[in-house]
Amino acid sequence: MDATTLSPPAAQAGARPDRQAYYDRIARQGLAPLWESLHSLVPREPRPQAVAALWRYEDVRPLVMQAGEVISAEEAVRRVLILENPGLAGRASITSTLYAGLQLILPGEVAPSHRHTQSALRFIVEGRGAYTAVNGERTTMRPGDFIITPSWTWHDHGNPTVEEGGEPVVWLDGLDIPLVRSLDAGFAENYPQAVQPLARPEGRSLAAFGHAMVPVRHRAADPASPLFSYPYERSREALDQLFRQGELDAWDGVKLRYANPATGGWPMPTMATFLQLLPAGFQGRTWRSTDATVFSVVEGQGTARIGEQTFQFGPRDTFVVPSWAPVQLAATQDAVLFSYSDRPVQAALGLLREERA
Amino acid sequence: MDATTLSPPAAQAGARPDRQAYYDRIARQGLAPLWESLHSLVPREPRPQAVAALWRYEDVRPLVMQAGEVISAEEAVRRVLILENPGLAGRASITSTLYAGLQLILPGEVAPSHRHTQSALRFIVEGRGAYTAVNGERTTMRPGDFIITPSWTWHDHGNPTVEEGGEPVVWLDGLDIPLVRSLDAGFAENYPQAVQPLARPEGRSLAAFGHAMVPVRHRAADPASPLFSYPYERSREALDQLFRQGELDAWDGVKLRYANPATGGWPMPTMATFLQLLPAGFQGRTWRSTDATVFSVVEGQGTARIGEQTFQFGPRDTFVVPSWAPVQLAATQDAVLFSYSDRPVQAALGLLREERA
Amino acid sequence: MDATTLSPPAAQAGARPDRQAYYDRIARQGLAPLWESLHSLVPREPRPQAVAALWRYEDVRPLVMQAGEVISAEEAVRRVLILENPGLAGRASITSTLYAGLQLILPGEVAPSHRHTQSALRFIVEGRGAYTAVNGERTTMRPGDFIITPSWTWHDHGNPTVEEGGEPVVWLDGLDIPLVRSLDAGFAENYPQAVQPLARPEGRSLAAFGHAMVPVRHRAADPASPLFSYPYERSREALDQLFRQGELDAWDGVKLRYANPATGGWPMPTMATFLQLLPAGFQGRTWRSTDATVFSVVEGQGTARIGEQTFQFGPRDTFVVPSWAPVQLAATQDAVLFSYSDRPVQAALGLLREERA
Amino acid sequence: MDATTLSPPAAQAGARPDRQAYYDRIARQGLAPLWESLHSLVPREPRPQAVAALWRYEDVRPLVMQAGEVISAEEAVRRVLILENPGLAGRASITSTLYAGLQLILPGEVAPSHRHTQSALRFIVEGRGAYTAVNGERTTMRPGDFIITPSWTWHDHGNPTVEEGGEPVVWLDGLDIPLVRSLDAGFAENYPQAVQPLARPEGRSLAAFGHAMVPVRHRAADPASPLFSYPYERSREALDQLFRQGELDAWDGVKLRYANPATGGWPMPTMATFLQLLPAGFQGRTWRSTDATVFSVVEGQGTARIGEQTFQFGPRDTFVVPSWAPVQLAATQDAVLFSYSDRPVQAALGLLREERA
Repeated sequence: MDATTLSPPAAQAGARPDRQAYYDRIARQGLAPLWESLHSLVPREPRPQAVAALWRYEDVRPLVMQAGEVISAEEAVRRVLILENPGLAGRASITSTLYAGLQLILPGEVAPSHRHTQSALRFIVEGRGAYTAVNGERTTMRPGDFIITPSWTWHDHGNPTVEEGGEPVVWLDGLDIPLVRSLDAGFAENYPQAVQPLARPEGRSLAAFGHAMVPVRHRAADPASPLFSYPYERSREALDQLFRQGELDAWDGVKLRYANPATGGWPMPTMATFLQLLPAGFQGRTWRSTDATVFSVVEGQGTARIGEQTFQFGPRDTFVVPSWAPVQLAATQDAVLFSYSDRPVQAALGLLREERA
Repeated sequence: MDATTLSPPAAQAGARPDRQAYYDRIARQGLAPLWESLHSLVPREPRPQAVAALWRYEDVRPLVMQAGEVISAEEAVRRVLILENPGLAGRASITSTLYAGLQLILPGEVAPSHRHTQSALRFIVEGRGAYTAVNGERTTMRPGDFIITPSWTWHDHGNPTVEEGGEPVVWLDGLDIPLVRSLDAGFAENYPQAVQPLARPEGRSLAAFGHAMVPVRHRAADPASPLFSYPYERSREALDQLFRQGELDAWDGVKLRYANPATGGWPMPTMATFLQLLPAGFQGRTWRSTDATVFSVVEGQGTARIGEQTFQFGPRDTFVVPSWAPVQLAATQDAVLFSYSDRPVQAALGLLREERA
Repeated sequence: MDATTLSPPAAQAGARPDRQAYYDRIARQGLAPLWESLHSLVPREPRPQAVAALWRYEDVRPLVMQAGEVISAEEAVRRVLILENPGLAGRASITSTLYAGLQLILPGEVAPSHRHTQSALRFIVEGRGAYTAVNGERTTMRPGDFIITPSWTWHDHGNPTVEEGGEPVVWLDGLDIPLVRSLDAGFAENYPQAVQPLARPEGRSLAAFGHAMVPVRHRAADPASPLFSYPYERSREALDQLFRQGELDAWDGVKLRYANPATGGWPMPTMATFLQLLPAGFQGRTWRSTDATVFSVVEGQGTARIGEQTFQFGPRDTFVVPSWAPVQLAATQDAVLFSYSDRPVQAALGLLREERA
Repeated sequence: MDATTLSPPAAQAGARPDRQAYYDRIARQGLAPLWESLHSLVPREPRPQAVAALWRYEDVRPLVMQAGEVISAEEAVRRVLILENPGLAGRASITSTLYAGLQLILPGEVAPSHRHTQSALRFIVEGRGAYTAVNGERTTMRPGDFIITPSWTWHDHGNPTVEEGGEPVVWLDGLDIPLVRSLDAGFAENYPQAVQPLARPEGRSLAAFGHAMVPVRHRAADPASPLFSYPYERSREALDQLFRQGELDAWDGVKLRYANPATGGWPMPTMATFLQLLPAGFQGRTWRSTDATVFSVVEGQGTARIGEQTFQFGPRDTFVVPSWAPVQLAATQDAVLFSYSDRPVQAALGLLREERA
């Protein structure tokens, strides 16, 4: 079997001239001949336009900081540099379904409150002390924290002034913008004020849902996690403890997925998120999967071999693995990687396929 | 609130010249400024590229029959004219996520066996006696029958010779090709022979699952329905009986969804399918929904008002409603409409939104 | 391993005299020594008090008819002879969790409307033309029909007068009375009138849910099936067709379970129901299961070997299989058996265990 | 409506003499007249035989310690004093479906490894340092810890010698013994050795599942929680933090349920478990529920008004609330209560009913 599995011989050779007149005629009726495109519409295996790529933080950081001079958070609404996949130019996408960007918020700034159908995740890359408020509860950011703003939840971001100890804070934004666009299902609106009022004290969601317990009257009406923030301190310690206990997968090292404590499922219905530890010296085996995945390096040094390319990664770098590309991860120093993909979508639709060599 | 809800004033006015240099610089690093495109990436409400359209069967039928002269079923693999949405030219799509085509199979022909990740539905438009075989079980086609070929199931189609009583058969193919493409998750392969061997007698799935009973050892491992064929005779009678009993929804007339008898859910995880009766004189109220929908008219005459356009429909016509477009259905004769959409996808991801005026 | 697996040697030998004083002392504080009863509290395998038994319809029928003289339906509220398991005397139970009774309704009678937490099933044994009304919809009874009255639904039964063509009708009532009692969770109340008003025409639930289709606005809020009646004609034909197609399980013959068309699950959350065909000459292999099961014979002749006993069965007989007893079914004439058990309870709680030799 | 709702007048008055002969005759056929018992079989509301009761730890403790002299852990297999509900004498039950006992393990002892269908929970009442091993992983006990041994998991308990720092340890055992018995579904077997081998280091399940994260390859095949131990330290801190943040329910104080982190559901499919804080001065409002509940007091002083009775409770006391009895909780000192019931069973079967005044 080859890449032209479903393609008839004639079609491969191009349309015969005598057929072209017919094709022109039917085109005027909004019709097209399937047999000329069947091979590309129903390919033997995924042929993503997205390519593997890595953004070095040392290259990107000066440009992110410069954005702070080019535009204010208020004017920008969200001061973000989109990490655009070179294979998807002009589509504001890092994979065919997902968006990634680095957001900067400077001391004293506010990114005004709004909500949208698109689900968003924040993974804190640099700086501490800024906050995200979600549905009336604030979470203070520290590097490595994973924070969610589920679909249609009011959210705004802010940062204390320099006088109050504020410092520039950068985080990775992950959203399902291309997916929602491909479904023509997106809505958005602004909150009447820049900053939404607070309804609950900080830490409430962690106290209520962070310890394998759930408030007795909680009803999981929403598919999204009622836990908004997963502090790095807890997640990192769990990885470390499992590694010390001897758990090490030959492909993944030690890998946990973030879970919705009220359902055991994903934190949000469209994006899976993971944190994994690759101990120094780890040489992972090769795997591939249909869910293209974005990685953000928290700590350590290593390499990602993706298809025929090898990328060196260090702290705060971002890289992307296309659908079905073979991947091999290795670490020269203890490395911690955050990652996200559209796995819940593929799983819900029966489309997820994985291979481990 | 207006259509530019999330857009900052500057962005609306276009990029300032002094910013362009910065944009050029970051572009070389695979970066783009979110604030210049936020308004289109996160729109106030869906802005589908797909438009409303109707294909009149009397216009299309001659071209479909002509396809029978232009190419053989064997050469074509599938002899189908794609119904391409005028707003999505070149993308083989009738909505942003769905494909529609009219397939012709002539007496004595075989469309060879293959399987693919994409789910497919067949709704028989004209002719009888051809068959679809799915996973070793054949189903004979009659107009109005609804037949599924779930993801990754071997399937082939065939038609008896003229001598055996064969006649040209045309059906509507509905597939999730654009959706699977947007997820980069499609696989396909050919069966070693043109016609797969039969493993079960015709009618087995209907006997086993068609009467609100399930074989006692059946395990619903697959999300797709174990019932492959939903005969029009049964569906039509159910609609008729409910109408005679006085059920009539002001928006939908009498409307049933096809169900997976082993789960109660949709027949396949990516496409919802419906059959509805609009009695003569019905003047439906206006609704809209985020799942763009393809309609195939089985019987009767009527009109579909979609946004500002009004389409007259008659038997065997196909029309499409874009996401979030207001729709009003009416019938001058008793009309029966089959329809399909990506509703299960939107529901699974928490994205479905509906409004009934 | 033997039957005293968890029992310490001392315990088996009976309490030592010097311990008895201690036992008496602690008893006054509401305490008891586990070690004296551990072996019976946590047995090696199920030790049901219920025994295998068969009620021959020719023996039972005269007594049922005599009940029609002893008490009126109105006075009795429900004129039922309970089939009481000989091993569970005085407990109105046919198995440890289930109740069975034969209900008689004479022409012109009404069994007044009430509702209760206990779920009820009706399997029509003899006569036709009486009706059950459930939540405002009537169903006319014919032999072999399976009808449900889910938990907390208003229901009443009635029979036309002799002048209207009424005849004595007998059906098997199956309820989860012992189960609900063991959970102390039962409620009941009477309807203000003997006969509830009708809200929908007869046949509505079959038209709406009986053909692998579901009304588009139906929400499965209730775990019970929205389909109230499963006519024997359909079920019998399905069994016959599958048999003609060659399906025959070595243990079960051809066996279907009744399904809730809105979920694919059981018609009610506490009772599973089945219909199976044993063709003439069938000699089933031995199985056992933890769900004690009640069988009602619709047609045919055969034998049920249960443990060391063999029961001859004929039309309208009822028999019961205790938990974990080995069973072998055989038929000398084509036989059809209806059966019910607490399987959904055992499955939901992770307790179901089965063995097939 | 009164307590005799479903009872016909005649039945209430007792069987008429002329009917008795009929009753005797049908009894010989294993039949009984429903109309004589309908009122008790289908009561207007729950009429539990179980009664409210409290076991004062200061009364019970000496007897528990004395058990250590009466029998060894090895001889007893499990050295437990059953807390037997006074209304259910001889049935080893604290409610109609649940069992409770206080288990003592002395330094140097082992309670040998076995497994059974019955699910078990342990709530540590006094002492520290003993362990429970479940499926190859040990958990060290401290007062207030909640530990599960799910259905059919190998488990044994042990305690270090005095020399190793061992001390007497007492815990509350909660099992679903009466429920499994009422379903005739219990199996049990002994492990070949007294102590099962260890397969994972202590703390593995907490590291892997305790922080709203789940190992990426974990599949929730089992309904029971993969987290075996819920340390009191974490649970207590969560309650305290929520209280400081102002959450206080008028009926429950601050109440959390223990959750299965892989599903969000109950830790085991048959028993719900809760921990709640009643701050000093709390005067709870009245509620009732169909799930009879066992409470174990961890800290503090207060009262439980159950029906017409008021119980004073203090640390380590156990009390039980029957089904549907009105309850009012109050605290004079900050009190923490652990509790368990068969709520998951009632919920799964659609039987749970609650009222809050």
